[in-house]
Amino acid sequence: MRDGQMKQIKRIARITIDRADSRSIQTQLTSRLKQMIQSGELLAGERLPSTREFARDLLVSRNTVVAAYEMLVGEGYLDSELRDGFRVNQATQAFQAIPLRGSELPRRERDSRVPAMPVPFRPTQPDVSLFPLAIWNRHRNRVLKEGNCLLQYQSKFPIGLDRLRRNVAEYLRDSRGVRCKWDEVAITNGSQQALFLLAHLLLSKGQIVFMEDPGYPGARNAWLNAGATILPAPIDGEGIQLPNDEALKAALIYVTPSHQFPTGTCMSLARRLALLKAARETNAWIVEDDYDAEFRYTSAPQPSLQSLDERRRVIYIGSFSKTMFPGLRIGYVVLPPSLVKVFTALKSTADDYSPLIDQATLSAFLESGAFYAHLRRCRRHYAERQSAFLELAARRRLPLRFPVVGRGMNLAGFLPEGMNDQDVSRKLQDVGLDVPPLSRYSVGPVAPGLLFGLAGFDKQQIQKGVARMARVFEK
Amino acid sequence: MRDGQMKQIKRIARITIDRADSRSIQTQLTSRLKQMIQSGELLAGERLPSTREFARDLLVSRNTVVAAYEMLVGEGYLDSELRDGFRVNQATQAFQAIPLRGSELPRRERDSRVPAMPVPFRPTQPDVSLFPLAIWNRHRNRVLKEGNCLLQYQSKFPIGLDRLRRNVAEYLRDSRGVRCKWDEVAITNGSQQALFLLAHLLLSKGQIVFMEDPGYPGARNAWLNAGATILPAPIDGEGIQLPNDEALKAALIYVTPSHQFPTGTCMSLARRLALLKAARETNAWIVEDDYDAEFRYTSAPQPSLQSLDERRRVIYIGSFSKTMFPGLRIGYVVLPPSLVKVFTALKSTADDYSPLIDQATLSAFLESGAFYAHLRRCRRHYAERQSAFLELAARRRLPLRFPVVGRGMNLAGFLPEGMNDQDVSRKLQDVGLDVPPLSRYSVGPVAPGLLFGLAGFDKQQIQKGVARMARVFEK
Repeated sequence: MRDGQMKQIKRIARITIDRADSRSIQTQLTSRLKQMIQSGELLAGERLPSTREFARDLLVSRNTVVAAYEMLVGEGYLDSELRDGFRVNQATQAFQAIPLRGSELPRRERDSRVPAMPVPFRPTQPDVSLFPLAIWNRHRNRVLKEGNCLLQYQSKFPIGLDRLRRNVAEYLRDSRGVRCKWDEVAITNGSQQALFLLAHLLLSKGQIVFMEDPGYPGARNAWLNAGATILPAPIDGEGIQLPNDEALKAALIYVTPSHQFPTGTCMSLARRLALLKAARETNAWIVEDDYDAEFRYTSAPQPSLQSLDERRRVIYIGSFSKTMFPGLRIGYVVLPPSLVKVFTALKSTADDYSPLIDQATLSAFLESGAFYAHLRRCRRHYAERQSAFLELAARRRLPLRFPVVGRGMNLAGFLPEGMNDQDVSRKLQDVGLDVPPLSRYSVGPVAPGLLFGLAGFDKQQIQKGVARMARVFEK
Repeated sequence: MRDGQMKQIKRIARITIDRADSRSIQTQLTSRLKQMIQSGELLAGERLPSTREFARDLLVSRNTVVAAYEMLVGEGYLDSELRDGFRVNQATQAFQAIPLRGSELPRRERDSRVPAMPVPFRPTQPDVSLFPLAIWNRHRNRVLKEGNCLLQYQSKFPIGLDRLRRNVAEYLRDSRGVRCKWDEVAITNGSQQALFLLAHLLLSKGQIVFMEDPGYPGARNAWLNAGATILPAPIDGEGIQLPNDEALKAALIYVTPSHQFPTGTCMSLARRLALLKAARETNAWIVEDDYDAEFRYTSAPQPSLQSLDERRRVIYIGSFSKTMFPGLRIGYVVLPPSLVKVFTALKSTADDYSPLIDQATLSAFLESGAFYAHLRRCRRHYAERQSAFLELAARRRLPLRFPVVGRGMNLAGFLPEGMNDQDVSRKLQDVGLDVPPLSRYSVGPVAPGLLFGLAGFDKQQIQKGVARMARVFEK
C-alpha cells in the first residue's frame, strides 16, 4: 500500500457518523466529504475507498455509501469510473488548498451585545415607557384580522400604504400647516432614509449643500455620501444666516426651522421668507427637517416653513421616532409634485417598500386618536422634566446658560466663553453621564456648550444627574 | 369707507369660529388669519379690524382677539402700531400672491388603494396563509416583555441585533454551507436593500456588472442606479456563461446559482469553479443571490457558491421574504471581512437601523425551531402544488416545456419556438391570470416562455388557472 493511500485512509477514517444528529446518515456523509474536498483534505484525482470497505468501516449500509457517492457525482465533486470506483473530480483542484493571505484571514468574532437603555442626558430620547404598547398591540391585532394582505408582497406601495399616507397628510395639515395632497406623502424608514434618498435624488458629486452649523450629523452624512460639498452656515437667534453670494451656488439648503438642531432656535419669519426667496431665485431645493416640532410647552408652534412656500421648493421631512418610539423606524417626507414619481422609483430600488404590518397599525393608531392622546401626555411630562431640570440647574448654580427654553426634548446649555466643551463632556462621561459637547455637531467655531436630552429621563434620574454634574463642575 | 376697506371687511367676515372644533377659539383665529396672509387674502400693510369690532363680529371676547393679534405680532405676521391698531407685516409680501405656473399646479389626488392578494400565477409569492401568525405573535409578546430596549434608539445596531445575526449565521452555515462568522452577517430591509447598498458601496459610474440574462430586475435596477453598465451573460443548462474577455472587465458579477432567476437552472460545479477563478484573477466581486434555495423537493440543495470560496470574493445575499412572509422586509447579507466596516457605515447613513421588534421576534422564532417546522410544511405543500400543476398541464396538453422541475416556488415554461411570449402573457391577463413572459426579464434574445408562480396558490386555484389557460391556448 502506497504511503499516500495510507494517509488518505487515515483521513477518511476520521469521518464519523453521529446517530444523534437529526440529519440522515447519507447527508452527514456527503456533507463531510464535500468539506474534505473543499478544504483539500481530499485532493483532485484522489481515489475514494470502495463502497464496500467504506460501509464496513462506518458501520452503515453499503447502499447509503453508494447513494452518497452518486449524489456527489451528480453535483460534480466525484467522478465515477466503471472499473476504477470513485475519484475526486479533477475540476475541484481549482478551489483546493488556496492559502489565505493575512488580510483575508477571518477576524476574531466579537462577543454579542444586547440593546440597552440610554444613560442621562443622552439627547433626543423619548420616554418609551410612556408609550401605550397595549393599545398599539390591540390595533395591530385588529389590522391583522382584516386578512393576509399585509403579509403579502405589495410592490405597488413603495412609498407606503395609501391609508397611512392619508393619515399623515391630515396630521401634517392640521398640526403643522403643511400644504399637501395625501399622494405627495412618502413613508420612509425613519427620517434618515428620507435624507439619504433625497441626497441621491437631488445631488450630484461636487454640488453644494448649505446647512446649519452646528447641525444634524445624520443629514451631513447623507449629503456627503452623495458626494456633495457642504457649506456650513452659522446660526444666530433668528436661525440660519444666509450669505447671499454663497447661497446662490447651493443646490440644496438644509434647515431645521422649528427647533434648530442642536441649539433649539426657532427661525424668524423674516429669515424664513428670505430663505424661500433665495431658493426661488436660485432654483435650490430646501429640505425642511421638522425635527422636534411637536413638543412646545408654552406656546403654539410656528407653522412649518413648507406652509409658507407656494412654489413647492420645500421638501418637508419628519419622523414618528420621537412621537411614537424610535425602534419603529417610520418617517415621512412631503414631496413637491414634480418629485413624487422619481422618489417612488428610487425607494422601490432601495428596498421595495417598508414593513406593512407596522404601517397599517400606525394608521389605525392615528385614526383612533390614541396618537394625539399619547402626544399630549408626553408633552405634559416633558414640560415638567424641562422645568425641573432648569430649576435644579439654577439652584445648583451650574455654569450653564439656556437661551431657548419652553420647548423641545433637548436643551442646549452654553458654557462660559473659553471653556472646552469636549473636556467637560468627557468628565461628565467619567461619572456616567452622556452629554455630548455642542462642538461635536459643528465644523466651524461654535460657542462652547452641551446638549441635554431631558424627555427620556424621569425626575429622579434628572435629580441624580444634576447632582452628579454639580460635583463635576465644583472641581 | 373706501372700497378696499369694504372688501377687507367682507373677507374678514368670512372667518367663522367653530365651537365644535377641539381647538381653542384663539387657535382657530390665528390659524385662519395666517392662512389669509399666506394666500394673499390679506395683503402686506393692510390694516386689520380693531379688536373691539372684530370681537363683536365674531361673538368672542375681546381678550381672545387681543391675544390672537399679539401672538401673530410675535410670530412676525402682524405689526402693532401704537395708535394705528394692527397691520399685516410688510415682510409678508414676499410670499403673497405668487401665481402658480402650470407645472407647479397641484395634481389631482388619486383615490387610495388597499393592498390585495396576488392573482395566479404571479411568480415568487409564498402562501402566507401557511404562516403560523399566532406562534409569531406569541414570540413577539415574549420579547416585548423583556423590557423597553427594543422601543428605544439603538444606533449601535445598524446592521442588526447581534442575537439575530448569530441565528442567521447558524442557519446559513447549517443549511447552505456558508462560511462566516456571525459578525459578518448584516441584516437589511429585504434582499433589495442589500443589493442597493452593495451597488453604492462597490460600483462607480461606468463600471461593468456582469449578470445573467434573463435575470432579476431588482438587481439590475440597483446596479443601474449606481451608474454601472450592465453586460448581460446568456445562461444555459449549467448556468451563467462566462466569455473570458468581457468577464475580465467586470467589477462585479451577479449570479443566482442555486436556482437561476427566472429559469430555475442550478449552476454546475465546473461553472462555479470557473466563476470563482475568474473573480480571483480579475479582483471582481461576486454577488451570490441565493434566491429560492430553500425549496428543493426531490434532492438536497447544492451548497452555496460562497461555501466554495476560500478567498472571500463572494458576497452572499438572502431574504426571509419567501421563507417567512414578504411584508416582514427582513433580508441579510454575508460580507467578506474587509467590507464589514464600510457596509455598516453605509447602512447607518441609509436608514440608521432596521425595525427592532421584528428582529428580536425573528430571533426567538428561529431559536424555537418554529422556523424550521414552517419551512418543512411549506416545502411539502409547494412540492404538491408543483406536481399537481405539471400533471394538469400535461393532461391539458398545454404547449409548454418545463426543463427544470422538482424545486423552487416558480416554474419556467418554454413555449414553442417562434411564439411571442408577450402576446401569450397579455391573452392570459385578459382571462385574469398574472403570468409574466420570460422576455420581460431579459435584454438580449431569449427563448419564448412564461414564468409561473405556484407556491402561493392552492390546488383549486391551480386547477382553475390551468383550465383557463387551456381555453386560451385552444384559440
